[in-house]
Amino acid sequence: MKPVIDYSLYLCTDRSLMSCKTIEESVEQAIAGGVTVVQLREKNCSSREFYELAKRVQQITKSNNIPLIINDRVDIALAVQAEGVHIGQSDLPAKNVRNIVGPDMIIGVSASNYAEGAQAVADGADYLGVGAMFATGTKTDAVLTPFEHLKQLRREFSIPIVVIGGINATTIPQFSGLGIDGYAVVSAIVAQPNIKKAAEELRRLIDTSKRFPR
Amino acid sequence: MKPVIDYSLYLCTDRSLMSCKTIEESVEQAIAGGVTVVQLREKNCSSREFYELAKRVQQITKSNNIPLIINDRVDIALAVQAEGVHIGQSDLPAKNVRNIVGPDMIIGVSASNYAEGAQAVADGADYLGVGAMFATGTKTDAVLTPFEHLKQLRREFSIPIVVIGGINATTIPQFSGLGIDGYAVVSAIVAQPNIKKAAEELRRLIDTSKRFPR
Repeated sequence: MKPVIDYSLYLCTDRSLMSCKTIEESVEQAIAGGVTVVQLREKNCSSREFYELAKRVQQITKSNNIPLIINDRVDIALAVQAEGVHIGQSDLPAKNVRNIVGPDMIIGVSASNYAEGAQAVADGADYLGVGAMFATGTKTDAVLTPFEHLKQLRREFSIPIVVIGGINATTIPQFSGLGIDGYAVVSAIVAQPNIKKAAEELRRLIDTSKRFPR
Repeated sequence: MKPVIDYSLYLCTDRSLMSCKTIEESVEQAIAGGVTVVQLREKNCSSREFYELAKRVQQITKSNNIPLIINDRVDIALAVQAEGVHIGQSDLPAKNVRNIVGPDMIIGVSASNYAEGAQAVADGADYLGVGAMFATGTKTDAVLTPFEHLKQLRREFSIPIVVIGGINATTIPQFSGLGIDGYAVVSAIVAQPNIKKAAEELRRLIDTSKRFPR
């Protein structure tokens, strides 16, 4: 059965931003602070290393009842039986991914405009990742998604929408009332000196902002 | 049903060695010269690019009735429904790969000693890739596999064995009488000015060497 995911505070890992902590430590502290879903993203390691890391992180997510989503690598997601896989526009087509993973694995798809959103929904996406919403040091080449695009995606599609890119305590309030289901955060959590406290503060802000109806 | 593969002349692509030709052109000419199986290996491109390339190469392999094997990326192999996937010792564990791809996809596993061979066979490998047999410019950090290891693997396991690493017209005769099923070639085909002719000459050598019984 497909897992039901609370996308509220969506942690994306980034090894390059984690100066002194391991990914496992960062994930553990972020979950303690209120992160509701964890996405593991690795681009520069072998498949075996990615697999072993995913297994270690999964021990933490599973024992906390938090879903684990693997970025891009559908084979790693299948090998560890992760709850989901996240697919960007330069990853495998979502339609192929749905064929490979079957009906029960969560598929998230990055979409920054109506056409990409429509394709993703037609291909069987379970949620949309929309952004980059703001300039960010994590992805310096990111093209910004206009708020009008986000609003259109929200209007047109009923699946959950997670915003990403420059999401932090300053920017989260700007989404208030827009009907956003989740906030994907990289550096505003993992690059902070106190990861647990950073996650707690963001979670509080998001819970407040969610009290506003769509 | 699992495809039956003639491993005799096993082409591995390497984009960095193909100075003036596209991978598609190289594969087409190599097949015209007598290559019996094609492995596609891409390490430095996006999943979408790898997928699109695999689809283009597959048009060539399919129309020539030549099996296509994808290196490392099980998800790409599944997405294009390739005949096989090849797994190195730093890729996903073969056991997980077998669980993911089901019983009918060919799984090749790199093995350079008895322990790795035994694990691969236990995990459901369909053939072993053994090497690097000789020093090679393709993989400069490759550790050489002693001929004694190759002979032991041949003695102990009945699945096909493909040798790799420095395989060319000079080295192929050294395997004569050892019961090798196939010769994996990179630069001795794709880096040659006349790819078709290079493949033809290697194929002739291999067919001659195969007339010797194990």
